[in-house]
Amino acid sequence: MTRMTERRRIVRVDGGRVVERPDALAVEEPLEIRVAGRPVSVTMRTPGHDLELALGFLSTEGFAATPDDIVEAIACGENVVDVTVTDGAAARVVERRFYTSSSCGVCGKESIDAVRTRSPYDVAADGLVVGRAVLTSLPVQLRDAQRAFDRTGGLHAAGLFTATGDLLCLREDVGRHNAVDKVVGWAVQQRRLPLTGCVLQVSGRASFELVQKATLAGVPMLAAVSAPSSLAVALAEESGMTLVGFLRGESFNVYSRPDRIAATS
Amino acid sequence: MTRMTERRRIVRVDGGRVVERPDALAVEEPLEIRVAGRPVSVTMRTPGHDLELALGFLSTEGFAATPDDIVEAIACGENVVDVTVTDGAAARVVERRFYTSSSCGVCGKESIDAVRTRSPYDVAADGLVVGRAVLTSLPVQLRDAQRAFDRTGGLHAAGLFTATGDLLCLREDVGRHNAVDKVVGWAVQQRRLPLTGCVLQVSGRASFELVQKATLAGVPMLAAVSAPSSLAVALAEESGMTLVGFLRGESFNVYSRPDRIAATS
Repeated sequence: MTRMTERRRIVRVDGGRVVERPDALAVEEPLEIRVAGRPVSVTMRTPGHDLELALGFLSTEGFAATPDDIVEAIACGENVVDVTVTDGAAARVVERRFYTSSSCGVCGKESIDAVRTRSPYDVAADGLVVGRAVLTSLPVQLRDAQRAFDRTGGLHAAGLFTATGDLLCLREDVGRHNAVDKVVGWAVQQRRLPLTGCVLQVSGRASFELVQKATLAGVPMLAAVSAPSSLAVALAEESGMTLVGFLRGESFNVYSRPDRIAATS
Repeated sequence: MTRMTERRRIVRVDGGRVVERPDALAVEEPLEIRVAGRPVSVTMRTPGHDLELALGFLSTEGFAATPDDIVEAIACGENVVDVTVTDGAAARVVERRFYTSSSCGVCGKESIDAVRTRSPYDVAADGLVVGRAVLTSLPVQLRDAQRAFDRTGGLHAAGLFTATGDLLCLREDVGRHNAVDKVVGWAVQQRRLPLTGCVLQVSGRASFELVQKATLAGVPMLAAVSAPSSLAVALAEESGMTLVGFLRGESFNVYSRPDRIAATS
């Protein structure tokens, strides 16, 4: 029923050659996330794993402090998920909505401090150690496990791995942050939060938002195929998270907490 | 004063070789956009061209129907821009804020209809014709003109070109949508809206959001280096915009209105 890709006729130009042919597109559609019937967010996402996306979003944005805050999540039609939460979490939703619309004088420093305060997990204390060979195998595993990318070229992927490189969960989406939220939502459903001892591998770049979401899920190591931003590195450092970037082939950059990466597995 | 990149010491691992060395990161910091002193949005952006970003955001999100709606934009500190608008635009800000927080039953169809209604420009009627050779030259020109990318690998670019391939304006940002908003904001300042007869070239993928922004700026052709999403194609088709994707080397895909692309310039 849920389609992640869509067929469409396009015009393909290759040098002097012009052909009309079918093509596969990554599906993008809005999902409205509601808490107790009230809209909290609309996100442009690829359909599929919508309940996970809603649960992950509420966790990585700090609305649900622990999975126990979530009572029930149900789909209302194709593009709406309604989540029932505890009274405490419901109060945070009201508070945050107010906070968001009246925020004032936000700066990088304040955002970082706010995230550190809000995360219920101590990522810095995590004893995870990952061998270099395991780490460099992750992008390859992610790519191999991606079902839809080869057909559309338009989907980001996020994969959750163990310290020995076993894939626990992979999710795809047109939005990087949604792919991460779907993985975290899976962990919420599996009662696996915090994600101690795990590595989160993403297909694209590492923004502040992704590091923030990883922190809120208790992930001690985030690895990206492309570049991190300055604020992503600053937050990883302050949180005690290991941040890896440009992970391609046998090489990678470590931006924070390199002590978690070992020469041998 | 404004830094788009930041130096930082990292650990570089390449096979068995491990070195500590300096590295350049794309700067990411929050910018708060205010209208008449009231916060409207906080966006994670790369500092620089902040006034353009604010003006472009207000235009491509439909708050400012025309550049005449904008009276003045001033920077308040490093990460805040305050925009003074006409009473009509101020009313739309209040209305949209309300609309956003009480939206209900959003679906792709409704979003597309809303954008078509709101855009003051008729992109479909634009008589732009671009030669294939001009089109395939745009990503190369964009890349050559990018000042910061080679050092960080973390910045998206958006470039505005004429039908003959002359670069009018290029902007970079950690966020694709911000790079586009900066270009549109430049056009607002230059009194060049709507951007009839122009091609907007972006470095990454083409999402619904980017097509929406291009429509609101009156751009008749959007070209992306990577894949478009299903909703991006649907909106381009309904708006009468030419959407090009996977523009690499001598080849590209045309998803809508291929009649604007000519075999010769």
